[in-house]
Amino acid sequence: MSEPFTRPFRTALTDRLALRHPIVLAPMGGVAGGALAAAVSAGGGLGQIGIGYGDHAWLTREFDRAGGARVGCGFITWMLAERPQLLDAALERGAAAITLAFGDPGPFAARIRGAGVPLICQVAGVEEARRALEVGADVLVAQGGEGGGHAARHRSTMTLVPELVDLVAGLGADVPVLAAGGIGDGRGLAAALVLGADGALVGTRFWACAEALVAPGAHRRATRAVGDDTIATTVYDQVRGYTWPDGYTSRVLRTPFVAHWHGRDRELTGALDELAVQYRGAVENEDYDVAQIAVGEAIGIVRDVGSAADVVADLVREASAALEASRPGAR
Amino acid sequence: MSEPFTRPFRTALTDRLALRHPIVLAPMGGVAGGALAAAVSAGGGLGQIGIGYGDHAWLTREFDRAGGARVGCGFITWMLAERPQLLDAALERGAAAITLAFGDPGPFAARIRGAGVPLICQVAGVEEARRALEVGADVLVAQGGEGGGHAARHRSTMTLVPELVDLVAGLGADVPVLAAGGIGDGRGLAAALVLGADGALVGTRFWACAEALVAPGAHRRATRAVGDDTIATTVYDQVRGYTWPDGYTSRVLRTPFVAHWHGRDRELTGALDELAVQYRGAVENEDYDVAQIAVGEAIGIVRDVGSAADVVADLVREASAALEASRPGAR
Repeated sequence: MSEPFTRPFRTALTDRLALRHPIVLAPMGGVAGGALAAAVSAGGGLGQIGIGYGDHAWLTREFDRAGGARVGCGFITWMLAERPQLLDAALERGAAAITLAFGDPGPFAARIRGAGVPLICQVAGVEEARRALEVGADVLVAQGGEGGGHAARHRSTMTLVPELVDLVAGLGADVPVLAAGGIGDGRGLAAALVLGADGALVGTRFWACAEALVAPGAHRRATRAVGDDTIATTVYDQVRGYTWPDGYTSRVLRTPFVAHWHGRDRELTGALDELAVQYRGAVENEDYDVAQIAVGEAIGIVRDVGSAADVVADLVREASAALEASRPGAR
Repeated sequence: MSEPFTRPFRTALTDRLALRHPIVLAPMGGVAGGALAAAVSAGGGLGQIGIGYGDHAWLTREFDRAGGARVGCGFITWMLAERPQLLDAALERGAAAITLAFGDPGPFAARIRGAGVPLICQVAGVEEARRALEVGADVLVAQGGEGGGHAARHRSTMTLVPELVDLVAGLGADVPVLAAGGIGDGRGLAAALVLGADGALVGTRFWACAEALVAPGAHRRATRAVGDDTIATTVYDQVRGYTWPDGYTSRVLRTPFVAHWHGRDRELTGALDELAVQYRGAVENEDYDVAQIAVGEAIGIVRDVGSAADVVADLVREASAALEASRPGAR
């Protein structure tokens, strides 16, 4: 579907990371494995393996699956603090970039930059952005609360991106800014660019790709959902026993399970042992009335399961068309 | 500052409402009076008087102040249901459009359309959008939760706009879609357009205009704030005795008053009589440690108090520049 004569977008990001397209795969924990990461990179973006709650064996397996492709690797920063050796493992496997999200990147920045690997810091607000710049981030990801999975949800992509672009410019920092959260097709990529970003970090649209570590039943449910069907909740973190710091929620499809338990923290705490068992069973049986489907609001415009390289090409083609169609006098 | 040779944006909105620019003033209750509405219209957008909690005398005064300019008028739909005669008054004063937000537009649609006046329906999700189209909305406003003042906050502008654009197209409806929420400068207008919208409904940027019914002290505070400084809360509705339906919050600057009372509903209810007195005193004394400043996340990129016609021209000029700078190969 891609038009071969579309000129590529060239931005500070594509220059800095030597990419053909200003598109980075969100390192969705447990979803963005080696196959998806390699496919995004093959398409001209930057793929990233999302370690999430994975261990050393998981990391090894997924880097193996990437088959030597040039891919980055993303960590949940507060979890990395509990097992910093995973960072060494990722660097040893030749990660092309390291993304740190959800926590202070300070303790890890020197190790990453010392290895000559670009440090991508995902932030959700102004103070976090200042901190990331202070520790030497090479790329800043401005994450709005409309995105899937975890986020500190006090800002949206539409406002955070231009504000952080201005912040970086005001400080005279030479740091590309990526938009993340709510970018589900090329219109979103175009929006990111006109807001001043140097590219987009995309999750949900790649979640809905054949190469993602996602069960077909989850894909079927999600590609029928509207954007109103997501909810930001801590229910799944509680039943899975993940102790996220205060202030973070995870955006997921509003399954019957979440619809029942969201906002009933006291009851939920009381029933936690049973619910943990129920949850594990549901994951095993791919029962998506109960098991989580972590997608963002953009799922409402994602209607099919694609292949990642095609998705990259479509994002670029659609963004180019949206920009062209929106110029003064074009309509 | 505007470049006289910039070509205008022509969209389904500018055609439908005979506007020079695809920019509509958000009818901010009690803030968008006749002077601001007239100034936006004079600049080539569509100004709107925001009735909010105002009564017949307020409406009359502000239409007088608009001095016969072609301006629309916006209502809080659930309040209009309690005093429908205000709609007749607005139509008698020659409102160029009627915006209905926050409630079912059904009971008022026939009256408005029967008067030959365009009906603009602001919606916050897919079901609301379907309902607005069903009752014959002429223009749909897709309101994201990043905006100032009241909103149902389950969607963001970045995702709601393309989803509703696709919905309208899928239904074969000939209804322009506007983006609202988080649009603070021309980069935001450009983003609205590439997301598929036919224009933008802008609040906060016009709130920070000399013509707005806003005290200088509030302007000074807000133009120093960052976007992280806002919070969506019901505190001010409670102390002012406004009984908004469930699901709505108002985005305001996090004053010391809000920082103290947000999340303490039980205590607040107990102290309501005293707090109501304190609040009224603070408004009278322009004490913005206590009195509300209702602005959206976009306040973080609004650094000055402008004049509304200049703001319209700047939005258009900046949007045009952002689109040009973002084209493939442009950087």
